[in-house]
This record gives sequence, C-alpha cells and structure tokens, in this order.
Amino acid sequence: MNLKLRRANQTDMGSVLKLIKELALFEKEPEAVEITETTLIEDGFGKDPKFQVFVAELDNEIVGMSLFYERYSTWKGKALHLEDLIIQEKHRGKGIGNALYTKVLKYANDHGYKRVAWEVLDWNKVAIDYYESTGAVVFDEWRVAQINEKALESFVKKTL
Amino acid sequence: MNLKLRRANQTDMGSVLKLIKELALFEKEPEAVEITETTLIEDGFGKDPKFQVFVAELDNEIVGMSLFYERYSTWKGKALHLEDLIIQEKHRGKGIGNALYTKVLKYANDHGYKRVAWEVLDWNKVAIDYYESTGAVVFDEWRVAQINEKALESFVKKTL
Repeated sequence: MNLKLRRANQTDMGSVLKLIKELALFEKEPEAVEITETTLIEDGFGKDPKFQVFVAELDNEIVGMSLFYERYSTWKGKALHLEDLIIQEKHRGKGIGNALYTKVLKYANDHGYKRVAWEVLDWNKVAIDYYESTGAVVFDEWRVAQINEKALESFVKKTL
Repeated sequence: MNLKLRRANQTDMGSVLKLIKELALFEKEPEAVEITETTLIEDGFGKDPKFQVFVAELDNEIVGMSLFYERYSTWKGKALHLEDLIIQEKHRGKGIGNALYTKVLKYANDHGYKRVAWEVLDWNKVAIDYYESTGAVVFDEWRVAQINEKALESFVKKTL
C-alpha cells in the first residue's frame, strides 16, 4: 500500500471539502455543510490560520484527512482539538484512520500539548474501543452544547 | 447591585486562577489544576493569545469570569468555545452567570462567529434548561473524548 501522510496545502482544500461532504451525507445532513473551498483556504492559510490539516494520500490520491486546532484547558494549559478524522468509505479498514490519528497525537506530543480532545458518538462502540485502547478516556457525563448562528442572533437581539 | 463586566487584563489572572481552583475543589478535583498564574498570563496575553476572559466585578471585587477561545467547524466555519463560566458560590443566583453568558454570546454575534459551543454535565438540569431557554441545543449522543499528556506520551512512544 503506497500510503503517504503529509500536511495539507491550499490546493488540497477541494479534496478536503469533498471528504467533509461525504461524511455529512453519510450522517444524513448534506445540507448542513455551509463551508466552501474558498472559506477553507482563507481560514486555514491566512495570516492567522484557524486550523491545520494532515491528508492521507493513497497512490497520489487524497483518501483521508484529519483537521485540528488549538484549544485551552484551564486545568492543564494548551490543548489540541481533533475536529475531523475522515477516511473515504471505500478505503476504510486499511489502517489509514489509525495512521492519521497517530500523526495528530505525535504532533501534539512533539509540540508540548497537554491534552488532545475530540467528540465521538456514544453508539460508535468500535471507535470508542479503539480510542480507549490508545489511552484515551471517553466521558459519560459530559454533554456537548451548541448555539448556532441564527439562535445566537435571535438571543442577542431579544436580550440586549 | 454594583455589577460591572469587563475584559480581563494580566493583573486579573490571580483572581481568575482562584475561581478555577474554587470550581475544581467543588468538583472534588483540586489536585487536577496544574495551571499557574504565570502560565495564564503567558498564554492569554502573549503575541498569540490562546484565550480571552471577561470578568464580573461586584463592588470592585472579581466574583465571576468566562473564558473562551476560537474553534472551527468544518460545516459552518469559525466558532467560539466557552471553556469556563464560573461564579463564586456565595454570589450565585444573582444573575451574574446570565450576564457573563450573554456577554460571550453578544461578542460571538458581533464578531461573526457561526456557533458557540461548550460542555455541560448531563445531571445539571438547571443549567441545561437555562441553555435551552436561550436557543442552545444539548446533544444526547455525542461524548467527549480526551487523551492526557502522560497517555499521549506513552502512546506515541509505543507506536512510533
């Protein structure tokens, strides 16, 4: 298997967006993806990059990616968040996800990050078992809360 | 009530750390706080600030704070994460938490963030009800996963 992992550049953002859309379709929310290739390039490669990406190339074709950025723990200090780890469906089961995950963890360790965090669906037992086998902890009691752009605007208008 | 909300400066980090430690004690994990005032100053006020803080002053004493930073959604774009919202126990129930929460949401809306995210304990019904009343969504199926510094190092050493 001719697998190569490398840091993404601007010209990869089209392939990265394809992977993002493939996952959204799999999760039955294709219309939820509002991001564009232009925005990914602006946000990831401007003077204040908002994320970093590793891509996995199989025979010179991008078949997977991991996208991550800095967070901050008020107990531990600087941390990384692994936002997405996506492998093309037809290339799963070949260890590509494992390779990308390991690359992000190695990056975190090399750069002195105190923690890496991400989110996982509670019914995805295969993923949870894998993460736990690497030394990660999946917390039972914590829930993710979000307010989206529309609700944010309506709340702010109503309140202030 | 003489309540004032303002952006924190370096000299507030001692008070901010006190609040962080008070919460950790309440959660029965006082020894988990490894961060120091010096680190908070370096990380929050250097040339690449890793977080921002609003403090709440009651009669010129800091009694609460909200700490937040940027994240990135591959569906929506730039987002904020509210890492901590802490009010001194003796000053709860006075609307200070509500005021700090609103200030962060207003900041997000003013600066074009597409989403604000945070985490909440699943048994904290009062908090969840409050968040939902503001238009936020609390997701049932997502779990938070983390790998800490020690496990990170041991995984990387074992793997590579």
